[in-house]
Amino acid sequence: MVRWQPDARGRLQEAALALYEERGFDSTTVAQIAEQAGLTKRTFFRHFADKREVLFAGSEALQELLVEGVSAAPESASPLEAVAGALAAAGAMFEPGRAYAARRQRIIAANPELQERELIKLASLAGAVAQALRRRGVKDPAAILTAEAGITVFRVAFERWVEPANRRDLESLIRAALGDLRAVTAA
Amino acid sequence: MVRWQPDARGRLQEAALALYEERGFDSTTVAQIAEQAGLTKRTFFRHFADKREVLFAGSEALQELLVEGVSAAPESASPLEAVAGALAAAGAMFEPGRAYAARRQRIIAANPELQERELIKLASLAGAVAQALRRRGVKDPAAILTAEAGITVFRVAFERWVEPANRRDLESLIRAALGDLRAVTAA
Repeated sequence: MVRWQPDARGRLQEAALALYEERGFDSTTVAQIAEQAGLTKRTFFRHFADKREVLFAGSEALQELLVEGVSAAPESASPLEAVAGALAAAGAMFEPGRAYAARRQRIIAANPELQERELIKLASLAGAVAQALRRRGVKDPAAILTAEAGITVFRVAFERWVEPANRRDLESLIRAALGDLRAVTAA
Repeated sequence: MVRWQPDARGRLQEAALALYEERGFDSTTVAQIAEQAGLTKRTFFRHFADKREVLFAGSEALQELLVEGVSAAPESASPLEAVAGALAAAGAMFEPGRAYAARRQRIIAANPELQERELIKLASLAGAVAQALRRRGVKDPAAILTAEAGITVFRVAFERWVEPANRRDLESLIRAALGDLRAVTAA
């Protein structure tokens, strides 16, 4: 008999993060995460494919949000404006999760396998954004260049956002990074 | 007794590419590559760490070239101009190897593991270029944004360059992609 578990997913994520911080990602097992959360391995696998995916569970939601944001931008928006609007909306979604994001970032920075996974997820994000731009009629290479530039802006802003001393919100850091990109590419 | 082998490295690369095309990357062994090249496994491992590295052997040279190009740019050059000059020099270096590059690209496109490896190499390239910009006094986030933009430009140009129907040289495609990037980021 499986009892309904209020926020089993959130408890598993918190347990996983705590264990990755304490003993490292490589030395943590799914059994330990489930035990720490007071749940079963079976419940873990109903929520996550493996212990790595706990850290990347948000990337599908982010991709959907960016793709929808690009698609919903006004027709008059330039490709970069469409991407910028979508990034700002994503920034607002992330804002309440800054403490979690900062812990997650430190865990990823300490593990090459996780860094590779992050690169793959970011490349897939850029690909999805480029596809959304093409559906708006943007041609290549403008679509792929705009999408890649947008993801770089997001990544740079995200890294500043999770710095311990940072007090600015993610959306304003995204807009600042976009301005910086415009400045460095200005002819 | 090891006889001196004229261009053992080149023969191993050609043998590897032919086998990856014929039977796929995963189904090819180092023993088969060495045999096809008329060399020993021992010779293979003097040149390459493993069968994957045959395909990425040029990335260190590319990184050195880009870093040197950025460092050698005139003091008056903007960060993006310094990167653009380095990319153009790299483009000229690649030009004679277009047929090889096109075959390599098809092999990588067919294999997720190789695509991941390519992403990691490109991220490392961007990191090295950003570091070279910082040594020129460029601050972050301008350094990382310029480096990432430069690597994206290179990648987009490279993909167009290896297309079967392409007749343009890599250097001119790099300059065109840079112009496209400037156009999409213009406010």
